[in-house]
Amino acid sequence: MKENSQPNVIAITMGCPVGIGPEIILKSYKEIRTTCSAVPVVVGDSAVLQECASQLGMQVTIVPWSSNVHCDKEVLYVCHVAEAEGGIRLDPSGLQWGRPDQLTGKAMASYINHAVKRIGQGEFTGLVTCPITKSALNAAGFNYPGHTEMLAELCSSTDYAMMMAGNSLRVTLVTIHQALCDVPRCLSTESVCRLIDLTARSLQGDFGIAEPTIAVAGLNPHAGEDGLFGQEEKTIIEPAVKKSAAVWNVQGPFPPDTVFTQAVGGKFDAVVCMYHDQGLIPFKLLHFSDGVNVTIGLPIVRTSVDHGTAYDIAGKGIASPESLKAAYQMASDIVRNRCKADMVERN
Amino acid sequence: MKENSQPNVIAITMGCPVGIGPEIILKSYKEIRTTCSAVPVVVGDSAVLQECASQLGMQVTIVPWSSNVHCDKEVLYVCHVAEAEGGIRLDPSGLQWGRPDQLTGKAMASYINHAVKRIGQGEFTGLVTCPITKSALNAAGFNYPGHTEMLAELCSSTDYAMMMAGNSLRVTLVTIHQALCDVPRCLSTESVCRLIDLTARSLQGDFGIAEPTIAVAGLNPHAGEDGLFGQEEKTIIEPAVKKSAAVWNVQGPFPPDTVFTQAVGGKFDAVVCMYHDQGLIPFKLLHFSDGVNVTIGLPIVRTSVDHGTAYDIAGKGIASPESLKAAYQMASDIVRNRCKADMVERN
Repeated sequence: MKENSQPNVIAITMGCPVGIGPEIILKSYKEIRTTCSAVPVVVGDSAVLQECASQLGMQVTIVPWSSNVHCDKEVLYVCHVAEAEGGIRLDPSGLQWGRPDQLTGKAMASYINHAVKRIGQGEFTGLVTCPITKSALNAAGFNYPGHTEMLAELCSSTDYAMMMAGNSLRVTLVTIHQALCDVPRCLSTESVCRLIDLTARSLQGDFGIAEPTIAVAGLNPHAGEDGLFGQEEKTIIEPAVKKSAAVWNVQGPFPPDTVFTQAVGGKFDAVVCMYHDQGLIPFKLLHFSDGVNVTIGLPIVRTSVDHGTAYDIAGKGIASPESLKAAYQMASDIVRNRCKADMVERN
Repeated sequence: MKENSQPNVIAITMGCPVGIGPEIILKSYKEIRTTCSAVPVVVGDSAVLQECASQLGMQVTIVPWSSNVHCDKEVLYVCHVAEAEGGIRLDPSGLQWGRPDQLTGKAMASYINHAVKRIGQGEFTGLVTCPITKSALNAAGFNYPGHTEMLAELCSSTDYAMMMAGNSLRVTLVTIHQALCDVPRCLSTESVCRLIDLTARSLQGDFGIAEPTIAVAGLNPHAGEDGLFGQEEKTIIEPAVKKSAAVWNVQGPFPPDTVFTQAVGGKFDAVVCMYHDQGLIPFKLLHFSDGVNVTIGLPIVRTSVDHGTAYDIAGKGIASPESLKAAYQMASDIVRNRCKADMVERN
């Protein structure tokens, strides 16, 4: 982490060059620069950004990033990865919005690699990622299940999770992309304990909550109503809450249909959820356009926009930059909170 | 249904005599009488209501209901069921808040029986129910799984469902009190079609929406993402939507984590949900205190408060009457809409 006197620098990877990444960066960087203390630097392709600006009729002054220069609030600082080691040279005139190919896939992966490398060198203090597609990543020869898994491997991290965070609600998910019928057998006391622990440590270190209070949702309606509608509360979730309660302020399992109202009302700092839609239905209802995906447990700070490449609207000028703004703001806050925690530790 | 010149009369069953039913009735009847055109009549026990008012320091003038008298907006009209055939005489001084017994269970059931009988005789045009407990009902010798099933049998109805309705969102549930692991095998194309049909007919007849638009949620995350996370969308839900689309304006299956935001935004009049928490998590988040439970498909109009007997707070004077007010208002609206539909049919 940088000393307080120097501003933090947060990298924004451009994501898929033919998705909405370039457009939402162009639409948001000035506001980001004004509202956040950290300096945003795009890790991507200057030529693609310039071409996108021209097509959308936007004015932009792109300046190659150098760690010594970051005083101008009006310009867009870019690490043009094409010129770096392992960079991919793209010809913007040959690209078509919404049509990824092997080259755009390789370029997209190179932005992630490059950003993580420079974070490792201490140049950037955090990472905000614009969307990629798994299929384009795989077609380019990077066989990761997704963005997060690629980042985790680059950071040599095995203990991480996704948190969806907004001003009203934070949720974490014990299972994610599982068919609903597979969810019950994917749960274990160990996996619930692990997520409670990751969630609590992130609330402390990333969100600056000294004594976080965590709710754990049940799996079944009415949290099983004492075993009447399912046993997982008794066999899996209650033991996990009991075990974790020795370390953290954690309660549950709660009936899933009321726990989110309690969390929004301020009773809990986060809700640990058993499956994808249990957490994402309430989260997206409250934070449809300003929700942020935070990867918790990584050594680096990483937030992500809460949407995909949106190929159907890429290049049309109608993409909303709100999620990127929220993701950057949250990364900036997390960097600040981690800095504070580091300073407390040092003193 | 009554002619327009006569006000409609809607019965409110008192529910469990030692739950919060009496209190929420006392707290709401004056407002209900002022804001709704239909006249509220409590079907319950005058002595219990009077005792509750005394204990809470509330003024109330209880008048025995007679179908010829309903002009005074300040009084509480009560059908004192104890004096009717099959009535149960309770001694308020012998009752304890939060402590139901066989006698209170029998009394509670008698209110429901009596109200349905008088609806059948054309005296009341709708029913709003205060909460009962299944265990007290069963202990009193009425072996129904719940309130709704008892009403359905009294109305000789087999094709009915629960709708949760509020100003922002309406949801119906294909499965209700099932352990999550049992949900997938409880779904069938037939059960989804049946619920789409019930939902659409209720939106037309009960809510006065001439051409209702219905969304059907998927079961799995991302609605299965083309079979990647589960097959039920392809094997069960899509065929149901296709079949129903011949009759109704119905679309889906949609990703469960975004369909509710679309419905709240006005794109759909209701969302047909596959399981309890899929519908109740977003519903309760939006309508925690003003949600109404409507039994759709019954020949009679029936709404219910969206909470239980709350024995833990019964008699303490802190129960909120908001759900009862909302349930009464909705019953009154449904009665009016059904009257209109009847008149259109007759002309």
